[in-house]
Amino acid sequence: MTEKKNRKTAAILAIGDELLSGRTRDANMHYLAGWLTSRAIRLAEARIVGDEQSAIVEALNAMRPRYDYVFTSGGIGPTHDDITVDAIAAAFGVPVIEHPKAMDMIERWYRARGEEVTPARKRMGRTPEGAVLIDNPVSGAPGVRLANVFVMAGVPRIFQGMLNAVDSELERGVQLYSRAATAYGLPESRIADQLRDIQNRVAGVAIGSYPIDGDVKGVTVIARAEEEQTAFSAIDAVAAAMRDLGVEPKMEDNR
Amino acid sequence: MTEKKNRKTAAILAIGDELLSGRTRDANMHYLAGWLTSRAIRLAEARIVGDEQSAIVEALNAMRPRYDYVFTSGGIGPTHDDITVDAIAAAFGVPVIEHPKAMDMIERWYRARGEEVTPARKRMGRTPEGAVLIDNPVSGAPGVRLANVFVMAGVPRIFQGMLNAVDSELERGVQLYSRAATAYGLPESRIADQLRDIQNRVAGVAIGSYPIDGDVKGVTVIARAEEEQTAFSAIDAVAAAMRDLGVEPKMEDNR
Repeated sequence: MTEKKNRKTAAILAIGDELLSGRTRDANMHYLAGWLTSRAIRLAEARIVGDEQSAIVEALNAMRPRYDYVFTSGGIGPTHDDITVDAIAAAFGVPVIEHPKAMDMIERWYRARGEEVTPARKRMGRTPEGAVLIDNPVSGAPGVRLANVFVMAGVPRIFQGMLNAVDSELERGVQLYSRAATAYGLPESRIADQLRDIQNRVAGVAIGSYPIDGDVKGVTVIARAEEEQTAFSAIDAVAAAMRDLGVEPKMEDNR
Repeated sequence: MTEKKNRKTAAILAIGDELLSGRTRDANMHYLAGWLTSRAIRLAEARIVGDEQSAIVEALNAMRPRYDYVFTSGGIGPTHDDITVDAIAAAFGVPVIEHPKAMDMIERWYRARGEEVTPARKRMGRTPEGAVLIDNPVSGAPGVRLANVFVMAGVPRIFQGMLNAVDSELERGVQLYSRAATAYGLPESRIADQLRDIQNRVAGVAIGSYPIDGDVKGVTVIARAEEEQTAFSAIDAVAAAMRDLGVEPKMEDNR
């Protein structure tokens, strides 16, 4: 696949029993996927594990040597079931410290609101040794970066705020050219043989086929390439195949 | 955590470039999580990988010795980018065969609808050798089971239909007792110290704390235990702590 050339890779590890029990539907993996795509960074893998240190450590140590950036979400709050900071430290083999600047941020955040700085709130100022803070524009307690690992909150609004805070630290890739053709009333299986031919015939393109399941069935085909002309050639061939099957496609640009 | 005792474990591997590009938001992991919880089977891990054989093989071979059941979703359709069957076979070290019964099901499905059985459609009758078919009540082409791995479609309606088809093959666990207390206007960090005390004091309970982020902030605390009385004792203590902080909690049963 041409699209992998020269692009930074990323992974996300979402942490939380509530994601695996069905209580909460994770929103951060999907948000991050789109956010990275718009920066031409390739999200290569996503995992969810529960609030269990050994599971977090093992997943993180499998992912961090393999990808340029690893994002975690969840488990950095004030309660006893928030164990991500300790797990990250264990994964890196470093101690957890009370980070002076994080402590200062937290104390000022709560004092400014006339609230007490409880032991639980101070706990959010603990970081793995050597970590750099990630600004939290929403609720005060910072995330942390350690090497290529970005440790962020699970609450979507805070996760997104922390992403914005690290945006400038990430190296963007070159955007692929991408074109889409959608045919309603055409089941994917009717055009599958033609798509395989086009994939084999047009060098440098990656053709994806995505069935539409709803009241009206259909298929969206997306051609991605580093060269604009390649994406156009492929999608034109797809559109011609759709017309041969009696359906006028809807064409659009697409990421 | 008491809740892990005697319960079967499961994992899901969702497959598809579109899930990692942000084009499609996976729906199957969350659906499966709730479905398994209602059967007292513990979903222990979830992963997403792209349409790449080596990534699928590696993830599957990491998961299948570790969990009682592994579900995959996606990549079993008729197009060239549907490579899951080949990857599953490679992970098990078995060849891909044209499964006579699957072929028969597919031919009958399309013939009954007056449609041609194209090479692409026949492709959906290929299975890893030794696989058992999973009925597809929605669109004809079956899923497959190989040992403890259930290979299912990515389209949510088909995924769900296939889950129902394998329901009787799974061994259910004993339901935990679970009680929830929700306090609006109470930030999680104000009650975190009290929750830690209750967790330490009540044997056999697992207390989870879930911040509510919306126009009105708040926190939901859930106590889970094998003994009903344990869950009640713990949540009563949580409710008392909430009242001490000036908030009357909303109590409910919860999974």
